[in-house]
Amino acid sequence: MKDKVFNQKVTTQPFPGSEKFYVNGKLFPINVAMRRIILSDTIDSEGNVEKNQPLVVYDTSGPYTDPNIEIKLEKGLPRLRENWILERGDVEQLNGLSSEYGRMRMQDKSLDELRFDHVNKNPLCAKPGKDITQFAYAKKGIITPEMEYVSIRENQLIDEYNGVIEQHAGENFGANTPKSHITPEFVRDEIAKGRAIIPANINHPESEPMIIGRNFLVKINANIGNSPTTSSIAEEVEKAVWSFRWGADTIMDLSTGKNIHETREWIIRNSPVPVGTVPLYQALEKVNGKVEDLSWEIYKDTLIEQAEQGVDYFTIHAGLLWKHIPLTVKRTTGIVSRGGSIMAKWCLHHHQENFLYTHFSDICDILAKYDVGVSLGDGLRPGSIADANDRAQYGELKALGELTDIAWSKNVQVLIEGPGHVPMQGIKENMELQLKYCKEAPFYTLGPLVTDIAPGYDHITSAIGGAMIAWMGAAMLCYVTPKEHLGLPNRDDVKVGVITYKLAAHAADLAKGHPGAQMRDNAMSKARFEFRWKDQFHIGLDSETALKYHDATLPDEGYKASHFCSMCGEHFCSMKSTREVRDLAKKMEEKKQAFKDGGGEIYI
Amino acid sequence: MKDKVFNQKVTTQPFPGSEKFYVNGKLFPINVAMRRIILSDTIDSEGNVEKNQPLVVYDTSGPYTDPNIEIKLEKGLPRLRENWILERGDVEQLNGLSSEYGRMRMQDKSLDELRFDHVNKNPLCAKPGKDITQFAYAKKGIITPEMEYVSIRENQLIDEYNGVIEQHAGENFGANTPKSHITPEFVRDEIAKGRAIIPANINHPESEPMIIGRNFLVKINANIGNSPTTSSIAEEVEKAVWSFRWGADTIMDLSTGKNIHETREWIIRNSPVPVGTVPLYQALEKVNGKVEDLSWEIYKDTLIEQAEQGVDYFTIHAGLLWKHIPLTVKRTTGIVSRGGSIMAKWCLHHHQENFLYTHFSDICDILAKYDVGVSLGDGLRPGSIADANDRAQYGELKALGELTDIAWSKNVQVLIEGPGHVPMQGIKENMELQLKYCKEAPFYTLGPLVTDIAPGYDHITSAIGGAMIAWMGAAMLCYVTPKEHLGLPNRDDVKVGVITYKLAAHAADLAKGHPGAQMRDNAMSKARFEFRWKDQFHIGLDSETALKYHDATLPDEGYKASHFCSMCGEHFCSMKSTREVRDLAKKMEEKKQAFKDGGGEIYI
Repeated sequence: MKDKVFNQKVTTQPFPGSEKFYVNGKLFPINVAMRRIILSDTIDSEGNVEKNQPLVVYDTSGPYTDPNIEIKLEKGLPRLRENWILERGDVEQLNGLSSEYGRMRMQDKSLDELRFDHVNKNPLCAKPGKDITQFAYAKKGIITPEMEYVSIRENQLIDEYNGVIEQHAGENFGANTPKSHITPEFVRDEIAKGRAIIPANINHPESEPMIIGRNFLVKINANIGNSPTTSSIAEEVEKAVWSFRWGADTIMDLSTGKNIHETREWIIRNSPVPVGTVPLYQALEKVNGKVEDLSWEIYKDTLIEQAEQGVDYFTIHAGLLWKHIPLTVKRTTGIVSRGGSIMAKWCLHHHQENFLYTHFSDICDILAKYDVGVSLGDGLRPGSIADANDRAQYGELKALGELTDIAWSKNVQVLIEGPGHVPMQGIKENMELQLKYCKEAPFYTLGPLVTDIAPGYDHITSAIGGAMIAWMGAAMLCYVTPKEHLGLPNRDDVKVGVITYKLAAHAADLAKGHPGAQMRDNAMSKARFEFRWKDQFHIGLDSETALKYHDATLPDEGYKASHFCSMCGEHFCSMKSTREVRDLAKKMEEKKQAFKDGGGEIYI
Repeated sequence: MKDKVFNQKVTTQPFPGSEKFYVNGKLFPINVAMRRIILSDTIDSEGNVEKNQPLVVYDTSGPYTDPNIEIKLEKGLPRLRENWILERGDVEQLNGLSSEYGRMRMQDKSLDELRFDHVNKNPLCAKPGKDITQFAYAKKGIITPEMEYVSIRENQLIDEYNGVIEQHAGENFGANTPKSHITPEFVRDEIAKGRAIIPANINHPESEPMIIGRNFLVKINANIGNSPTTSSIAEEVEKAVWSFRWGADTIMDLSTGKNIHETREWIIRNSPVPVGTVPLYQALEKVNGKVEDLSWEIYKDTLIEQAEQGVDYFTIHAGLLWKHIPLTVKRTTGIVSRGGSIMAKWCLHHHQENFLYTHFSDICDILAKYDVGVSLGDGLRPGSIADANDRAQYGELKALGELTDIAWSKNVQVLIEGPGHVPMQGIKENMELQLKYCKEAPFYTLGPLVTDIAPGYDHITSAIGGAMIAWMGAAMLCYVTPKEHLGLPNRDDVKVGVITYKLAAHAADLAKGHPGAQMRDNAMSKARFEFRWKDQFHIGLDSETALKYHDATLPDEGYKASHFCSMCGEHFCSMKSTREVRDLAKKMEEKKQAFKDGGGEIYI
């Protein structure tokens, strides 16, 4: 097994036409990873050369696209944040794992073969009485290196560090030259208000800080994880690295099969993005799938086990209450959340209130010690257009708002999960109620799908709803792949899901007027107008596919330098015609008066 | 060549799990083609059987999915509307073609080999002084068979003809049981107001009437057509039939290569949906691509040639005026419409106003004689986010509004073409200005793409904008394929484009509350909840892809009867859990009082 992981070829090349570079912090000695797309020169019809400055873009791919960093999966990624965490002086190294299950797995020799070699047997934990979450710091007015990191990262295109802004401002981008507004102080303030979170478990120092909040770039999450029937650790690690490459801002490991604990260790140690989980899934595996055998004790041990491995946020279905269950009985599709249906079953079997709700305060105490964020799960999200925006859904959403207050009082960072399936005219209401009930805590939605009738295309039905709700204020979108409702996504599906959500998130950034968002569009359009084909491929979200589609009609290398394309041919090329129009217009300008006499209305 | 067409296998099977049926008219002896999806029974955990009534859906596939109609491409489709047209007594058969070019092609023996056998040498034309357009009839208060046809078709799910409404109303569809409102009189009234059109050239009797207007189902168009470098007549006919099958409501033949005239004949004779063209493309081919050689005379002869073949609507770039051209000079992507750039070039070369504008009244006189609709082209649509909603675009839109008045005064049916590339926050303004300037004439948009940065995925970037603008009022969406901006779409791309736009259009129908739109979603969700896998495939827009994706994980036939799927496995199946929750809830209901004592808050 381990050999298989070792030998797995994860893609480590830089993106074509791009290079990795680092921007230094001003407040802290940090190096923020970014990607620069190198553009070719513009050469006009008279042979004049215009330089096109490199385009800087947000980069989630981590060390995998830096040729100067050697990737060894069995060692894990460099521990970027380790010193930042230790230097704050408010955490201590434990003498061993606190989780009983964690210790048991560690001692099990039969697992040696598939265990990550360098498991940290002495995880970090807050010192007694210390508040170590990013939320706690922010409320105290403290700017952390994590906060400066994200402020630089979010300003990727307009960065005033290193003069990037000078490179990009100017004529080419017309009226849309953006102004920076994301300062470290702004980041701190948004976190302090609960409007944004930096998921950053102190036991996941490998992660590059990122922020989720509606005044920042819209983020996307990719779900990976094995299932009882398929997939190995090696495959899951590869799927994770593949997700980072194409743009996943966080991943969730939703494994429900064998060796969940060991799979997660491999993933976290090799993940430059925050990792989320649904601890309930593993807890259920621990009781062999028997919902009635679930208990607070088993669940609690699972939280600790995962917190000490470094999971950055937990989905917790604590808002699904006893009183909501009857509201689902007449639904078309009942309860479609796995976590939700498990807890509903548990409540009914034990005739008790959801233990995630009754123990929510205890849960937050645990999370606060490691700075694990809570993503309040929507166990009652609608699973069909017919069930959208119903009493069950909104009843739970209200409960999530109450839980937000509890989590905040414990300094835990909060996300709120949202639907699901919602027709377009119902999306705004979802966003408005979420902001109201949950006091502007960041909204993290799954699409929503705007129709049910297109299985095989639900990445698209959901990207429509996702783009819209992100425009209206959702901070992060959970991707949906083409296999949704049908089967398990493979590597290709993961990529299509990530790219589709990346474009939806970007469309929302544009619509919200996020500073700098339009620079990439403008660079693309300029390259398109100037027939710089390779630049178009490189600027796009998926250069490989763009190149492949181009070459399907005109594979010859010469056509990448041609001033027209296969779509219209030369006579019908509007871009070519426009250049001629401009040339004509220019000549006419020179003889303006003469034409005025002839043409009457001409005012070129 | 002809042999190749003959031997071409166009797909003629009915859809899996579906059958074609016909609904009779009440006012006229018409038979409206529809598709019925046969659903399997619901069997609950106690073995009780519930019948699921067939689901009736709108069907654009024409005779190709009716096993009782023999398809012979070389003969063309049955001439459905021929008698309707002749019985009105206001048209006459001409003694030969009116177009010089048409006659020349007809006499050219060298074309015999690729010519459609049964070319109509004596096309129909309005009798002198007769107003024969659907618009003219509607204004006079006359309901035509075409109008009754579309009224039945639009009510596909809730049709009161043949008792379809009884089949579908009821519990299964909950509160969303729709009520019919689309009567033949409503159709007439919408057409009379200029808010909707039925493109129905009297020389295209093979077409099944359909309506484009914002108070009807949102329609989609698929572009096909050869290019100078690629594709044969056989391929184009096959692409057309393929488009009908997957849901194209109209097609546009945008051929710019060889034998445009003959290709178009084959397509029209075999098309059950309206066919649009951009006559300027062929006119330009006639002058060997030399824009400066274009003239009103050549263009006029092209209009007549195509009108007598049966083209149902023409895109005409008559709103691009001399005064608009300078407004494009500082654009990022200039003029991206092919027609627009041709006309701009022509204007500048001749120092004259656009001849399509100066001759617009003459154009309308021609169109009215055959009931060809005019689709006022947006030659200045933005080709990038940077150029969206600018003065050039809106200046032209205003001009289109003025032209609408002229066309209406000549009884010509009008569509207005729209963008293009527009960020989400700019979409509403487009729709509002279009309604205002163009007096509610139906809006026909190309997407719009909501970002420029995803070449290879522009079917998706544009479906986001398309769904939104259709919700806000656009009546028809022109599809975009994954190859947009990169290359020529092949058969697979055409299908992906059509399905993507079909789902976007349907999402808009849902959001607008179109009566009956949600029934298909509800049928899907019910099938999903009940694990009726084959029904899910059949109800979906693309059963083949859904089946393929399902089988990629669980190919065994037995899994199509299983009460869980590969995604979560059995323990984690929320649908399965929900059924157990419902069973538990039911038992609890029986012992309500006892539980109340124990649980306090229970109100099951």
